[in-house]
Amino acid sequence: MQKTDFTVTTLGERTVPSPVKLSTVNDDYIANYTDDSEYIIYDIETTPDAAQRTFAKDRLLEKAGPRQKIYFNPADVCAAIVTCGGLCPGLNDVIRAIVMCLWYRYGVKNIVGFRYGYRGFFSEFNLAPINLAPAAVTDIHRRGGTILGSSRGYGGRAERIVDTLERMNINILFTIGGDGTQRGALGICREIDRRGLTIAVVGVPKTIDNDLSFVQKSFGFETAVSKAVISIASAHTEAADAVNGIGLVKVMGRQSGFIAAHTALAINDVNFVLVPEVPFELEGENGLLARLETRLKSRGHAVILAAEGAGQDLPAASETKDASGNATLADIGLFLKQKITACFKAKNMEVNLKYIDPGYIIRSAPANANDSIYCARLGANAVHAAMAGKTEMIISMIHNRLVHIPTALAVATKNTIDPDGPLWRDVLEATGQPQLMINGKS
Amino acid sequence: MQKTDFTVTTLGERTVPSPVKLSTVNDDYIANYTDDSEYIIYDIETTPDAAQRTFAKDRLLEKAGPRQKIYFNPADVCAAIVTCGGLCPGLNDVIRAIVMCLWYRYGVKNIVGFRYGYRGFFSEFNLAPINLAPAAVTDIHRRGGTILGSSRGYGGRAERIVDTLERMNINILFTIGGDGTQRGALGICREIDRRGLTIAVVGVPKTIDNDLSFVQKSFGFETAVSKAVISIASAHTEAADAVNGIGLVKVMGRQSGFIAAHTALAINDVNFVLVPEVPFELEGENGLLARLETRLKSRGHAVILAAEGAGQDLPAASETKDASGNATLADIGLFLKQKITACFKAKNMEVNLKYIDPGYIIRSAPANANDSIYCARLGANAVHAAMAGKTEMIISMIHNRLVHIPTALAVATKNTIDPDGPLWRDVLEATGQPQLMINGKS
Amino acid sequence: MQKTDFTVTTLGERTVPSPVKLSTVNDDYIANYTDDSEYIIYDIETTPDAAQRTFAKDRLLEKAGPRQKIYFNPADVCAAIVTCGGLCPGLNDVIRAIVMCLWYRYGVKNIVGFRYGYRGFFSEFNLAPINLAPAAVTDIHRRGGTILGSSRGYGGRAERIVDTLERMNINILFTIGGDGTQRGALGICREIDRRGLTIAVVGVPKTIDNDLSFVQKSFGFETAVSKAVISIASAHTEAADAVNGIGLVKVMGRQSGFIAAHTALAINDVNFVLVPEVPFELEGENGLLARLETRLKSRGHAVILAAEGAGQDLPAASETKDASGNATLADIGLFLKQKITACFKAKNMEVNLKYIDPGYIIRSAPANANDSIYCARLGANAVHAAMAGKTEMIISMIHNRLVHIPTALAVATKNTIDPDGPLWRDVLEATGQPQLMINGKS
Amino acid sequence: MQKTDFTVTTLGERTVPSPVKLSTVNDDYIANYTDDSEYIIYDIETTPDAAQRTFAKDRLLEKAGPRQKIYFNPADVCAAIVTCGGLCPGLNDVIRAIVMCLWYRYGVKNIVGFRYGYRGFFSEFNLAPINLAPAAVTDIHRRGGTILGSSRGYGGRAERIVDTLERMNINILFTIGGDGTQRGALGICREIDRRGLTIAVVGVPKTIDNDLSFVQKSFGFETAVSKAVISIASAHTEAADAVNGIGLVKVMGRQSGFIAAHTALAINDVNFVLVPEVPFELEGENGLLARLETRLKSRGHAVILAAEGAGQDLPAASETKDASGNATLADIGLFLKQKITACFKAKNMEVNLKYIDPGYIIRSAPANANDSIYCARLGANAVHAAMAGKTEMIISMIHNRLVHIPTALAVATKNTIDPDGPLWRDVLEATGQPQLMINGKS
Repeated sequence: MQKTDFTVTTLGERTVPSPVKLSTVNDDYIANYTDDSEYIIYDIETTPDAAQRTFAKDRLLEKAGPRQKIYFNPADVCAAIVTCGGLCPGLNDVIRAIVMCLWYRYGVKNIVGFRYGYRGFFSEFNLAPINLAPAAVTDIHRRGGTILGSSRGYGGRAERIVDTLERMNINILFTIGGDGTQRGALGICREIDRRGLTIAVVGVPKTIDNDLSFVQKSFGFETAVSKAVISIASAHTEAADAVNGIGLVKVMGRQSGFIAAHTALAINDVNFVLVPEVPFELEGENGLLARLETRLKSRGHAVILAAEGAGQDLPAASETKDASGNATLADIGLFLKQKITACFKAKNMEVNLKYIDPGYIIRSAPANANDSIYCARLGANAVHAAMAGKTEMIISMIHNRLVHIPTALAVATKNTIDPDGPLWRDVLEATGQPQLMINGKS
Repeated sequence: MQKTDFTVTTLGERTVPSPVKLSTVNDDYIANYTDDSEYIIYDIETTPDAAQRTFAKDRLLEKAGPRQKIYFNPADVCAAIVTCGGLCPGLNDVIRAIVMCLWYRYGVKNIVGFRYGYRGFFSEFNLAPINLAPAAVTDIHRRGGTILGSSRGYGGRAERIVDTLERMNINILFTIGGDGTQRGALGICREIDRRGLTIAVVGVPKTIDNDLSFVQKSFGFETAVSKAVISIASAHTEAADAVNGIGLVKVMGRQSGFIAAHTALAINDVNFVLVPEVPFELEGENGLLARLETRLKSRGHAVILAAEGAGQDLPAASETKDASGNATLADIGLFLKQKITACFKAKNMEVNLKYIDPGYIIRSAPANANDSIYCARLGANAVHAAMAGKTEMIISMIHNRLVHIPTALAVATKNTIDPDGPLWRDVLEATGQPQLMINGKS
Repeated sequence: MQKTDFTVTTLGERTVPSPVKLSTVNDDYIANYTDDSEYIIYDIETTPDAAQRTFAKDRLLEKAGPRQKIYFNPADVCAAIVTCGGLCPGLNDVIRAIVMCLWYRYGVKNIVGFRYGYRGFFSEFNLAPINLAPAAVTDIHRRGGTILGSSRGYGGRAERIVDTLERMNINILFTIGGDGTQRGALGICREIDRRGLTIAVVGVPKTIDNDLSFVQKSFGFETAVSKAVISIASAHTEAADAVNGIGLVKVMGRQSGFIAAHTALAINDVNFVLVPEVPFELEGENGLLARLETRLKSRGHAVILAAEGAGQDLPAASETKDASGNATLADIGLFLKQKITACFKAKNMEVNLKYIDPGYIIRSAPANANDSIYCARLGANAVHAAMAGKTEMIISMIHNRLVHIPTALAVATKNTIDPDGPLWRDVLEATGQPQLMINGKS
Repeated sequence: MQKTDFTVTTLGERTVPSPVKLSTVNDDYIANYTDDSEYIIYDIETTPDAAQRTFAKDRLLEKAGPRQKIYFNPADVCAAIVTCGGLCPGLNDVIRAIVMCLWYRYGVKNIVGFRYGYRGFFSEFNLAPINLAPAAVTDIHRRGGTILGSSRGYGGRAERIVDTLERMNINILFTIGGDGTQRGALGICREIDRRGLTIAVVGVPKTIDNDLSFVQKSFGFETAVSKAVISIASAHTEAADAVNGIGLVKVMGRQSGFIAAHTALAINDVNFVLVPEVPFELEGENGLLARLETRLKSRGHAVILAAEGAGQDLPAASETKDASGNATLADIGLFLKQKITACFKAKNMEVNLKYIDPGYIIRSAPANANDSIYCARLGANAVHAAMAGKTEMIISMIHNRLVHIPTALAVATKNTIDPDGPLWRDVLEATGQPQLMINGKS
């Protein structure tokens, strides 16, 4: 049922001249419209031999940007925005960019924001949508979080959501959220199709873990890393200044250890990075505890950085799921704290372990400059896509180009660190940790 | 004479087993060596029709990374580092990464740093090179600038430089610098060839302006933008809080306006961005001064952001060149300050112009987290390239992959903003400024 | 005519019970009202012998705080705020605190803000005052500058200002500004007296230079120092990384070198601090230029930090005055840059001087945490004073207590660094510069 | 046995001319020595009537600063530094200032640092003291923590410590630490007296809680507040963006709630501040839980800031003590989290509580500019005191003057917030919380 190809769905023929005035020729110093024939190649890794083969049309990505002709008459548009899931730096930047582009570039004046995620579509919560105009959003990018509020869940109830869209005459919906949110958006598209409506649904992918496929680097991720670095600096100071000090930091990363890996590369004070993609053992001569003891005895202190999804096979991971349907993880930070403390107590070796869990501080931060730029561009180009009648897609950046990705394609797989690849290789070189802490392997 | 193709030069056959222990198979959770057959496609923009054509071997980029067999025996290596030109965030990060990778990964213990750029090669300046070991570089990435010092010029005197390399038995040279520095490196390679020496010369491209071709985004650039943003915030506050306040900020960008463009996108307080790539006029109804007056009369304040190379056709640009041979620019900031002040004085209209020139504050800043990551990876992979006997090349990132670029190719053209392209388009949308401030055009 | 004693003027008997509900007894865990009998001793420096003498009532300072009975009936109050002179970190914090305390503590709902300083009182400028309520100020402390705008001058025209106060039925005026502003406020009080009106005028002293007497440390000063430190770090990096590098930084300080002195103490990279209070010579063996040459020859670089009012006897200081009546200073930064460059050119000694003028970046910054606290307390206690009918006074902190200071007393003298005292002594120890750069003295 | 008066002990007559060259006359632009007759009045609060009384010599504080004649011959001095207890911003600044002043001002070249607190005096730990010279400390103030390491305990074993001092011929000891550390120093002085030795012991008071008496504001405190503010901003964002969001932050403050109180004043997003000095109840109509419910129902979110020592009468506080002998506190943060969650679960009311514990991030931060200034001055003036033969004292700032305080006096009482006083009053005005959350009182 779900499309897994690269073709973006459109609502229909584009007949409305765009109010955005651009050029169609080069060298006139005026920026150009993006033409529907502009694509980029997705699979760029090759060998000299392979390069002789042809690249098929079905692995090309459509470039984002304003089209000369658009689908919606701006005067008829009622647009809505919803933000779902956990906080992430840049949410307000994206909201701001969408509103500004709709209002000033296209003249769309009917813009509403649903409150607290998909829950805002359900009247029983008494969460009236708020009107969004430039004055309401002009300064919001200076603050973390989302002015719309956010929550998990309710995305699976597409019928009720489409009821609300119909009742409010909304014909463009921007869904800012992660995997679960965009799956919800896909369900909404199915229901829209079923009813024969012409509502564009354009997603802006949000995942602080950077775990969405077909997204080169998710917005807020760089900011998250820059904040995680501060906790590592604290952990290192605490560790280095105490007798056998151990700094232990847990960061986000349920299924993908990108924040942990990048943080370790950014600050050269981490000795052990633990990520979900690479298993490790605690016990045995090649396990983490023995390696930690060796480090303490030679250097007097150590810093451990664990992604929240690391080592989930170690503790008895609980089986419950949160409101978005994500499996609840065992708390690897508290688990390691307890195991390490017990281990050295049993050995009668004094250690001073300081555990830092900066999760909320990281995710509620305002976007840094580079993420602000990225969010501004994602938001504006999401608007261009929606006004052109594109739907069932997310706006993304691949190979540094803004592109349109079919939503079904984006949610089909997760983005994870390749343990065979160059990122993990560079991380191991930076930390000097063992290639693999599994007994019987090196 | 200069090669302009994509093929990287190597000093000779690689026969030494690398001391870096990695894997050659997938799915063992151990990172892999990079193989010489791994390439990426450079030209990724296409159309569905064009995608049917084949991609020729001559536009592929070789991937960076540690090779299983290397050229140099680590025990025989004497490596040298030199930093040239203006300061840029991340220089110390690169130096640190090179030293750490040489020392800990390859066991190279003879590493020297030349002082104050290429000048350090000339004995008459009495600038003895300094020995570089981990203890000397472990914390330097927390500070801006370069511990080696830097200066312009002297790169053209390859004979004297190679004399010094020979005298000191140096067989790997890392040149961290921009366009002029890498041209100097190319000359050094020519002289090395002429003498039949086997010295690897690997460049790490440094340009705060982001104006080097075949470099997706230069290190330090993001940090520079994040610092420029602070000056724009100041300029906006000063402008908004004064009667007809005008905030005028000059940032780096001799031939490329990337810092100005990105800064304007990052902070939504800029009303006019002036870059070298797009001409503008001061006078006339469509000139900057008239547009500025309109803005002041409607909103009461304005912020102008000028790249230093903007509007060079306007004032009588001086003809002198600096020590690196760069044409000296007229100071567009002071020029605009004077022109704007005179214009409104003549109109008897009170304006309060505040001029901010944050150049030194920007370029002397320590790298932010993302630039630190980038520098750490550039430095380590420059070492991998050099140990493998690659030469006449720079290490770079293209389409988010670390690659080897022949130096001649990298310096053949400049990287500039495409006024027809999406970056400039998004900038104009963010500032709301006229498409073109040339009379007779809109 | 002006009072120079320590007695605070009150408009009349206080008969209205305060709506602020506090305690009058100790040990009930409820904060107490401030009683009019609470004072602090101003002259605390003494010797054991002198301590035997009595302290006279005429050198005591009245403590600030809410009174149990107040003068104004909150329902009858129309309060106004004006911000004058140059920007300073914390202005918005003070505005916010005044509005919040008036509105929530006293129930005053008529609050207006005059635009662009005293100019806002003059109808010919068409600058209608704006209404101030909590919603308008709740987030303004996160931004630098002043939401009311600011400008210099017009404070001397008290008649016109009091005309406006009368016309608008304003009975409390908060004047946030420096020396000139508070002198203006004094003139307004004179005119109010002359007309027999009962209008309270309470000043909040603002001086980024920290040059107001009877103010222990002015708000925004600490923030200014913390921002100046960044420029010194830049100057030091630029100096240390160039051949005979000289970093030259100019900071605020027309008559008082406090910002320069504190900045030098905060960051240990300054070699020469130049302040208005201590003369120096350029030429001669004990002059700055010779000392600078010695430093360059021994250490290879130097950092100079000059307050804008330093060395005004050296260049031909211009005679003009700005709109506030302050004498216009010669630009010591550009002057030194020129003199130093010329000096070493004449000696044929290469130097690389980098000049940084961070003035606007410093003064437009948002207040740091400690200044925010201070501003919050100054604003609230200014309201308590005004509601109690205190007038012709400024709110201040002395010996860490919030107190009331008669305006005439505060503007009678300037606060300057005592070259004989401990602050300057500690600065010289930190920089290691000569005690005095005057020839014929050491 | 312990002196509780204000008189500072000296080791004996001062006969050595100080190598620090200063002036003894005014108006020569040369800073002056401090004379032993210079004092400040400690009790400055008064009433006009009381001001007539005399101030007795026994409540005056001796001013700090370099004396013209000193006690120790610099060539004979061997100085030692020890840092004890928890980390605090500015420790490295103080170490640096002591070393620099000893070395450059007095020519003392024998300086050692004991490792990991008083434990470093005990040979069984194999913690050899490290030599301290300018090169070792020049950049350490840029980093948090202490280069000497720190730990708790061992201060009570004065005999062993004095054994080490004698064995190493140390005649000046600087003890950087809090209450417990300075009590330890007092015991060391007793033992020194008993043995008839002439060793000066000068303390630099360190308490991130600001709970030491006779210290106007402890170093690192402002930095701590500035970092706590970041967590409140996070907590507020998390609270405001969730359905019935509650942000709960725990900060340091075992017996004194100064960090919590100042943080609430610095950022206007806290609704409930809980400090050790003011009791509160959880249950009942005036208890915290009912007040919290009211707040959530009216505003939809709330932020609670708890000092770690708040509400210790509520939970069953444990009876154990840590290595310094401090009573171990129940974790008020986790306790409140559990109580609040249970309360609203029982009411079937959805709340989203986010708990942030930024303790390690706060205390390991580098000092901000103002704390750096303060530390630089504390360190230098501690050296001046010690070289003059002052002992059994701490260096402190009172009424903005650097002074000498007898150690016995400083440790006799704790500094706490006065619930009747102006600080707590201003806090309640800023938060709008009830005066007292005790049932039966308002």
